[in-house]
Amino acid sequence: MKRNILIIGAGGVAQVVAHKCAQNNDLLGDIHIASRTKAKCERIIESIRGKGSLKVEGVLEAHALDAMDTAAVAALIRQTGAQIVINVGSAFVNMYVLDACLETGAAYMDTAIHEDPAKICETPPWYANYEWKRRDACTEKGVTAILGVGFDPGVVNAYAKLAIDDYVKEPESIDIVDINAGSHGRWFSTNFDPEINFREFTGTVYSWQQGAWQSNKMFEVGKEWDLPVVGTQKAYLTGHDEVHSLSANYPQADVRFWMGFGDHYINVFTVLNNLGLLSEKPVKTAEGLEVVPLKVVKAVLPDPSSLAPDYEGKTCIGTLVKGKTDGKDAEVFIFNVADHKDAYNEVGSQGISYTAGVPPVAAAMLIADGTWDVGTMKNVEELDPKPFLSILNRIGLPTEIKDANGIRPFEG
Amino acid sequence: MKRNILIIGAGGVAQVVAHKCAQNNDLLGDIHIASRTKAKCERIIESIRGKGSLKVEGVLEAHALDAMDTAAVAALIRQTGAQIVINVGSAFVNMYVLDACLETGAAYMDTAIHEDPAKICETPPWYANYEWKRRDACTEKGVTAILGVGFDPGVVNAYAKLAIDDYVKEPESIDIVDINAGSHGRWFSTNFDPEINFREFTGTVYSWQQGAWQSNKMFEVGKEWDLPVVGTQKAYLTGHDEVHSLSANYPQADVRFWMGFGDHYINVFTVLNNLGLLSEKPVKTAEGLEVVPLKVVKAVLPDPSSLAPDYEGKTCIGTLVKGKTDGKDAEVFIFNVADHKDAYNEVGSQGISYTAGVPPVAAAMLIADGTWDVGTMKNVEELDPKPFLSILNRIGLPTEIKDANGIRPFEG
Repeated sequence: MKRNILIIGAGGVAQVVAHKCAQNNDLLGDIHIASRTKAKCERIIESIRGKGSLKVEGVLEAHALDAMDTAAVAALIRQTGAQIVINVGSAFVNMYVLDACLETGAAYMDTAIHEDPAKICETPPWYANYEWKRRDACTEKGVTAILGVGFDPGVVNAYAKLAIDDYVKEPESIDIVDINAGSHGRWFSTNFDPEINFREFTGTVYSWQQGAWQSNKMFEVGKEWDLPVVGTQKAYLTGHDEVHSLSANYPQADVRFWMGFGDHYINVFTVLNNLGLLSEKPVKTAEGLEVVPLKVVKAVLPDPSSLAPDYEGKTCIGTLVKGKTDGKDAEVFIFNVADHKDAYNEVGSQGISYTAGVPPVAAAMLIADGTWDVGTMKNVEELDPKPFLSILNRIGLPTEIKDANGIRPFEG
Repeated sequence: MKRNILIIGAGGVAQVVAHKCAQNNDLLGDIHIASRTKAKCERIIESIRGKGSLKVEGVLEAHALDAMDTAAVAALIRQTGAQIVINVGSAFVNMYVLDACLETGAAYMDTAIHEDPAKICETPPWYANYEWKRRDACTEKGVTAILGVGFDPGVVNAYAKLAIDDYVKEPESIDIVDINAGSHGRWFSTNFDPEINFREFTGTVYSWQQGAWQSNKMFEVGKEWDLPVVGTQKAYLTGHDEVHSLSANYPQADVRFWMGFGDHYINVFTVLNNLGLLSEKPVKTAEGLEVVPLKVVKAVLPDPSSLAPDYEGKTCIGTLVKGKTDGKDAEVFIFNVADHKDAYNEVGSQGISYTAGVPPVAAAMLIADGTWDVGTMKNVEELDPKPFLSILNRIGLPTEIKDANGIRPFEG
């Protein structure tokens, strides 16, 4: 049983996390938001007050914090009395925040693997390069740490576990498919921080197939998927966090991640990438100014948080598991469909931020009530998926199941 | 009769100018090359010595010069005894160099209209915004100034004059077509300074039609041309210097400029332009660094001067004049075909620099022997084209003529 939340980060996902925490503050307690720029935290608090999202009267406070300073994070945890830390800051801060949780005993959550800004898409195993090195420390100190508990990674890992528990006992393949069929109405924009978005695609694409890591280039392997609601969509083999943990937990299955891209996105990405404009290595202009091209691209692109008001359409993200049950072929696709407009109306964010920000709040509720307060480090597929998906059904991300018997809601 | 050349600029075109001057230094006299970076001038001199290009023993000297400092330019003209200045520096320096020629009496030449770095593709009339304001001063002081004497503008203006003198007495349209059917083998590169290259295409496209300026967007109006040697090529209505002077001299004719572009160039340009990466207005990165996006694009693109060794294929640039002669329909296409490899073998430059750099040397030879030493300011179509084209026949850019009687060389 734990209470009081410290949210680290103040971007689009943090906005969703904060709203959802507010809607459930009877269970979660005080809500603190910390970021390098305190004003961004204050804007989120204004938005919560504007929408009257607090379920019961309670603490809602903004803090300035350098999340790469473990001692400062630990001090803020102690000062606020937060027992649950939801880290939705940049992926560069994970290890510093995790260490502060180990120091203070607070539960830790994040939504993406730690990244070293100097290394992009490192050779697998990525989790083992960083977070998993603290697993024994978490166990020794009884610290709950839930890694990668956004939508993907996160909910899709729970979908994999549910599929294998109830539908496909002997999995042979786990394919995660992420389609954003929405439209932001701009000529081009990334859906979240361009620096992070493009970095996902400039390195080698790793997938786990036939018991070994396979390497491909981005946009090398494409496949059309026929999906509920969003219809036929082309998605491409992409490296992604959950491939690493799922392949460690289900090494006998092929584990692949597929992300949907339109031809326009691919064209813009290809031009920028081939010209060297997505590089994070500085270049020197003719005038002698040293500048990182990717940071200039980020500066000219729309601020992803500005997209929300005009965003329309739906996302479909799910996990397809194929294999055998009792020697017979079995297959299930477990998924969620989210709507950009609904997300904006509820919490002032677009659907991509919404799907990433709601799940850690569900996890926080399970830590608060003790269900997931496991006192060690876990990836999501190592936890019981049913209480998690049941809460998500209630708080905005309902699960659906498609198999030979058709499509039906997950009943919890 | 004038002697001794001061070349301003040390880029790809200046390299060609210097080589061609060296090959004709019996007539032209001493050769001086001046640029902000003296080492670049010295590299050109090494290249001339390496190829043994000097026709007779003679002076060949490098100088450091800020060409935007009129007094410094005038001092260098006096110090070197140069009577002919070939300005092939950036288009930003024209007016400063022209004023130095007015001060010293040296003949002036350039290959592009003056540009104010803060204003791109100004509303026409461009020449009248800058150079033509000095026309009376040139006449008063007897200073010869030949404007826009590269290939286009330059040779194509002479083609127009020749066409109207000898083939189409009453011109109704003058279309200049510039096709580079060569290949540099890189994924993408501009053929000359990206800052200048892209600036030509980011503004409004002006053409002179039906006695008035017409505005279009870049790549809005395309047309397939069937041309000698290079075959069928798509070219797009583009704003260009010669449209302004030709429309002033032949206001009764439509005057258009067409530049050939492949789909790949257009795609890369469109992506960069739509994202705002071709802007010369500074943006601020998340880290607070002020940077001009176009300068970063320039920094990541190949240095155009590095393309020459691998450049293959041909250019075809010419002037199509249609109209009437003695009441009957008449039409002629006067053109040159140049070869990238031949240019590299002769002067170490690619064909685009070659076609731009040879014509001002032919003009210098005509000033040196008195033929074009007119003691006032002229655009090329205001001068006798035949001696000019005859020299070009001899020094590397032969002219051909296509009309109802077929294709034949211009005999001089």
